[in-house]
Amino acid sequence: MSSSSSDLSPIAEALADAAAAKSMHYFRTPLDIITKADESPVTLADRAAETAMREILAARAPADGIYGEEHGPERLDAGRIWVLDPIDGTRSFITGSPLWGTLIGVLQGGRVALGMIDMPVLKERWIGVAGRGATRDGQPVRVSGCTEVAKARIVTTSPDIFAPADWSAFDRLSRQCAMRRFGGDCYGYAQLAGGTIDLVVETGLQPYDYLGPAGLIEAAGGVVTDWQGQPLGLKSDGRVIAAATPELHRQAMAILSA
Amino acid sequence: MSSSSSDLSPIAEALADAAAAKSMHYFRTPLDIITKADESPVTLADRAAETAMREILAARAPADGIYGEEHGPERLDAGRIWVLDPIDGTRSFITGSPLWGTLIGVLQGGRVALGMIDMPVLKERWIGVAGRGATRDGQPVRVSGCTEVAKARIVTTSPDIFAPADWSAFDRLSRQCAMRRFGGDCYGYAQLAGGTIDLVVETGLQPYDYLGPAGLIEAAGGVVTDWQGQPLGLKSDGRVIAAATPELHRQAMAILSA
Repeated sequence: MSSSSSDLSPIAEALADAAAAKSMHYFRTPLDIITKADESPVTLADRAAETAMREILAARAPADGIYGEEHGPERLDAGRIWVLDPIDGTRSFITGSPLWGTLIGVLQGGRVALGMIDMPVLKERWIGVAGRGATRDGQPVRVSGCTEVAKARIVTTSPDIFAPADWSAFDRLSRQCAMRRFGGDCYGYAQLAGGTIDLVVETGLQPYDYLGPAGLIEAAGGVVTDWQGQPLGLKSDGRVIAAATPELHRQAMAILSA
Repeated sequence: MSSSSSDLSPIAEALADAAAAKSMHYFRTPLDIITKADESPVTLADRAAETAMREILAARAPADGIYGEEHGPERLDAGRIWVLDPIDGTRSFITGSPLWGTLIGVLQGGRVALGMIDMPVLKERWIGVAGRGATRDGQPVRVSGCTEVAKARIVTTSPDIFAPADWSAFDRLSRQCAMRRFGGDCYGYAQLAGGTIDLVVETGLQPYDYLGPAGLIEAAGGVVTDWQGQPLGLKSDGRVIAAATPELHRQAMAILSA
């Protein structure tokens, strides 16, 4: 391998810097919006940012694999895979909301060794490194100690991300929480890592949507799995539950599958 | 009167500065959250910020009326009334989201002479003055030219703000739009003023929730009324529709009341 685990953070920071330079250049300017087959909007910014990130990886970690939203997979048999979403929350981006971010997850030995949520408009960089904790702009952050659904604050991006049966499960769970919120795309996972949200439950996600957040939250002390309690990887079904504590995770899973 | 219409902006800016100093002091620190009778969370920050704003009005516009969220009405028979919400989006505030803001509306002769949405975390100040246009941080902003529901981007804070019949109406309308988004509290109105959102439809709002945004959006070229098309005032029923153009407003109203 070209670099050890301790080299991951500087590379991830360089990737986020490069992505932000491209994406901020386009933010709030008229965009040539192209509709992809799955109807999610994608922008020139998204593509330019991922290209910039891949150029850095080609120079600094050429043997590593890449799984990106825009330009497809490369070397998925490598010992380390960079999972990239240059702009998570393209709908936020094109509607002028600041709640979109760059997501970076590094898979190594089947686990997430590093997870990052970078928020260019907010100028907040959230990083978690397995075994070393999580930080926001260099300051340590940690999940809340919430162990009960009845006391939990839950967030999800939109009712519209759920199939009907999944919405019933989410609705049942979230109505038992102390507070439920909608919106925010990837920022909900950052709030969870920072201890101000206790639960995030979503569906329809891709690996580049959940692996960066999962790495951050696990390093901050939280638990992230699919709805069956299985660890997340490149082949998960896109249903994600992230919780501040194992107890809250167990309770919430039981209600989801009731 | 103690001051003419041209003096409104400096006073409003001073109010927003004072509110931000108080609210940012408390943001992301443990809060003594008190549950009000209507169950919305209110914080020490909210009260401290409104107190600071009222001190400024007592000094600089002592004859004017005040309608604030936290400390009740004063001199509502005055020729000019300051309508204040020190922290709109207290749920965003206590969950560590940046999408809360300070709202200021100035009622004069039954119309909104000035409207402001100040976003302390984002450091964005949106101001509209009747007859003089709207700005974000001093740069002119304007609503989009969207005239068709089928091309419109709509946002509302949450499905949970609607009574069932109102939700049916909102759901019918929003499913005909090009995009619907949830979340954001007052920020949706700023996005509308800036041309990146075309429609905001909400219910259950108080005068301090809608008069500041209404003044901003009207100055930016948009249309804001209740769901019957009536101008907003201190006695509206809390159902608000804000649109980028009169054509879009008419179409959306027709679908809401279908």
